[in-house]
Amino acid sequence: MKRHSQIWIAGLTLSLLTSCQQYSAPKAYNAPKVINQSRDADTSVELARQALSSSRAFEIVESLTVEVGPRLAGTDKDIVAVDWAMEKLWKMGFDRVYKESVQVPAWSRGTAIASIVAPYEQPLVITALGGSVATPERGIQAPIVRFESLAELEVASVGRIKGKIVFIDHKTERHITGKGYGESVGGRSKGAIVAAQKGALAILIRSIGTDSDRMAHTGMMRYDEDVTKIPAAAMSNPDADLINAMLTRSNNVVLSLNMSPENQGIATSYNVIAEVRGSSKPNEIVLIGAHLDSWDEGTGALDDGAGVAIVTAAAKLIQDLPERPARTIRVVLFAAEELGLVGAKAYAEQHKDEMELHYIAAESDFGAGKIYQIDFNVHPSVFEKVKFEHSAMIRNGVALGDNEASGGPDVSILPALGVPVASLRQDGNDYFDYHHTPNDTLDKIDPKSLAQNVAAYAQFAYMMAQSELDLRPVNKTGLED
Amino acid sequence: MKRHSQIWIAGLTLSLLTSCQQYSAPKAYNAPKVINQSRDADTSVELARQALSSSRAFEIVESLTVEVGPRLAGTDKDIVAVDWAMEKLWKMGFDRVYKESVQVPAWSRGTAIASIVAPYEQPLVITALGGSVATPERGIQAPIVRFESLAELEVASVGRIKGKIVFIDHKTERHITGKGYGESVGGRSKGAIVAAQKGALAILIRSIGTDSDRMAHTGMMRYDEDVTKIPAAAMSNPDADLINAMLTRSNNVVLSLNMSPENQGIATSYNVIAEVRGSSKPNEIVLIGAHLDSWDEGTGALDDGAGVAIVTAAAKLIQDLPERPARTIRVVLFAAEELGLVGAKAYAEQHKDEMELHYIAAESDFGAGKIYQIDFNVHPSVFEKVKFEHSAMIRNGVALGDNEASGGPDVSILPALGVPVASLRQDGNDYFDYHHTPNDTLDKIDPKSLAQNVAAYAQFAYMMAQSELDLRPVNKTGLED
Repeated sequence: MKRHSQIWIAGLTLSLLTSCQQYSAPKAYNAPKVINQSRDADTSVELARQALSSSRAFEIVESLTVEVGPRLAGTDKDIVAVDWAMEKLWKMGFDRVYKESVQVPAWSRGTAIASIVAPYEQPLVITALGGSVATPERGIQAPIVRFESLAELEVASVGRIKGKIVFIDHKTERHITGKGYGESVGGRSKGAIVAAQKGALAILIRSIGTDSDRMAHTGMMRYDEDVTKIPAAAMSNPDADLINAMLTRSNNVVLSLNMSPENQGIATSYNVIAEVRGSSKPNEIVLIGAHLDSWDEGTGALDDGAGVAIVTAAAKLIQDLPERPARTIRVVLFAAEELGLVGAKAYAEQHKDEMELHYIAAESDFGAGKIYQIDFNVHPSVFEKVKFEHSAMIRNGVALGDNEASGGPDVSILPALGVPVASLRQDGNDYFDYHHTPNDTLDKIDPKSLAQNVAAYAQFAYMMAQSELDLRPVNKTGLED
Repeated sequence: MKRHSQIWIAGLTLSLLTSCQQYSAPKAYNAPKVINQSRDADTSVELARQALSSSRAFEIVESLTVEVGPRLAGTDKDIVAVDWAMEKLWKMGFDRVYKESVQVPAWSRGTAIASIVAPYEQPLVITALGGSVATPERGIQAPIVRFESLAELEVASVGRIKGKIVFIDHKTERHITGKGYGESVGGRSKGAIVAAQKGALAILIRSIGTDSDRMAHTGMMRYDEDVTKIPAAAMSNPDADLINAMLTRSNNVVLSLNMSPENQGIATSYNVIAEVRGSSKPNEIVLIGAHLDSWDEGTGALDDGAGVAIVTAAAKLIQDLPERPARTIRVVLFAAEELGLVGAKAYAEQHKDEMELHYIAAESDFGAGKIYQIDFNVHPSVFEKVKFEHSAMIRNGVALGDNEASGGPDVSILPALGVPVASLRQDGNDYFDYHHTPNDTLDKIDPKSLAQNVAAYAQFAYMMAQSELDLRPVNKTGLED
């Protein structure tokens, strides 16, 4: 396994550099002294070849979206999804398949009806934000007060807000990294607290979404136990435009809002786990994750059926190799990510004694767009070497990126526990067109892009299961994607 | 007015031919002996210039969609729309503004809930078709039987259908002319009759739409008074895909359907009419129409707020000319087009003694895509001459087309009554993405394309109000768009 084949490597590197326009070597790039073994690089190339010629991942996400569909954590369909996953993973022949219970908040959507009452009557398309309380049964009718952003709401006077319905009108920017989401999502997650502190009766936000479909984007919101809980909903982008048009005509735009969601206590869900048992270091773990739960209005194809399919299909390719890699590859399908990384937090707690054995972790939770870059959070001294081990990924359009990865939502809590992570960054230009809406359905997934993701995850997991580098200690300060 | 300016015309024609790639003269094209007057051609060019630099049409459709919004014929909002139109037209200073009552069927949508019960439980996104009856209060639960098209349903045996829910799975092709709609809409309009004749309990169709949004497309359906009336609904394209995926897994796909629409008898609506009074032939009419009603789920921006705005803004440009053209330009905003050309039929009846005075008619009812061609239905002997009178339109990308126009939905009944018509054909590539869905909102309208439509309608109406050609008799056999 230690044979070096400099000629082969040089040839590979040259062909990689010439075959991919996206990659350019950093100026200060020095060829690392420790390079990956040629046999591992061969295997990496072969894994990618197999992934790109396989439709397995698409078949998995098709199965999940057709045979389960929406699977809100804490509902009956969530358990249907857990059973589906256990059976699917078992039938695929993984070395080990098991589940670990997680206590999750249960919430039901109920109905959400809103309309503009003045200056002109019009119905609105809204959806309750996850975790919202209901309105009184008779509903709420009050004037609206508009804010450009959460920041503007935070500095507004109580006098402007008291007795009104707060409207946060923050538009979400389209960007390959999805950074617009991070910039606007604060209004969704924290808006109800800030609005209630200033006496608002309810909060309605412009959807955190880049589309112009008349569909509202749901998503989790939070309360503060010391602050009055007010109903919270999102409206579609065209509805937000309509309200703005009303506001140009009248300072007194009055809304009627009636919502009946219900928080229903605690339910049991499960993290579902499958393993490809390592050959020589079976206790060391390369974790590739996704989340099994979804919102309830689409079929959870992009979020996160795609991720479930990608990491499962990637691990299956490695399971089917003639020889197991050194470390164990652990596929974790997290519970209740949408409700606040609930399964991930439970996993970290349940596996706290094993954290030191987690060699590296990554999560696929950004739809099915192609991966254009891999980033890491490893010790700076080995960063260039880790990157070089992943050189074969360049062939499939994956550039070797920076050392500032968070690892993905569920996995983002692991660096603080000392675990190195990687982010396999996907093209997210259209992800927030569909995110958390009824439009999150199978037809939005391009099978070829999905297969490219499988290739990258298989290559990543395999090379990390074989690597002889020491990736620790990592930056624990919670680097953000 | 009779001065010919051959040099000017030659120069114009040359510049028109060189400035527009879309136009190519027919091989057998002979320069007509009667050509339009230079002053009229000047005016036509000036009207287009003004139209393209004006935002008036966008302001009109913005006003209609914001201040009225959805306006289903026979509802209170329909009357709000009539009042809006009367006031808007009056304030614009047309020579005459009036309304004529129309008796329209009143129907309320109620709720429409459907789900797949077996082999896997999943909710569906559906919408009732216009005019549908309700299910029994407890709903209908029955296996589905799938047909590729209405034609396949028509030849199917009673044994396959009796006691089941018919599913017509006809996909709508995307095409600039919108021809896919004509090919698939039969299942929507006639499917319930054919299905009921064979003992079906209900009918659900794949939406007549080219999008992959999880939105169902509504639209009118018909019953036969001698056939049992069964509930009829459309599902979104992704939902139809989901059912197909279920059908690959099981022959026994069972649906649950619960709908509460209601036919509510007859209500009064109005055709709203405005006129630019002709100077020398005021009794002769150039009719440019659109329909004022809309479906109830969007704000009726594309269908047909755009048409209302286009023909109104076009007529206003002519109203504001220093001199009125010879004939009267009559803007007709038809009532209840969506419910079966109800306003158009009433107009034809109410104006039957005036039909001979209708010089030509055209309707804008295909969204806000650019006009790429103008077609006519006039006597063949004058067709080339009529075309030549419209040469100035070529500058704005409008090709001079064929003599097989229908004139648009409402206007399509006029050729049978002897009235010449024109079709100003719009790019309909994306029209059926939004048609009859909640997505029919203002943001789907491109102001520049809308202004190009205004230019073409102003040029058409003006040149036809000035023409000295005798356009009759026409082909009365109902040429189809």
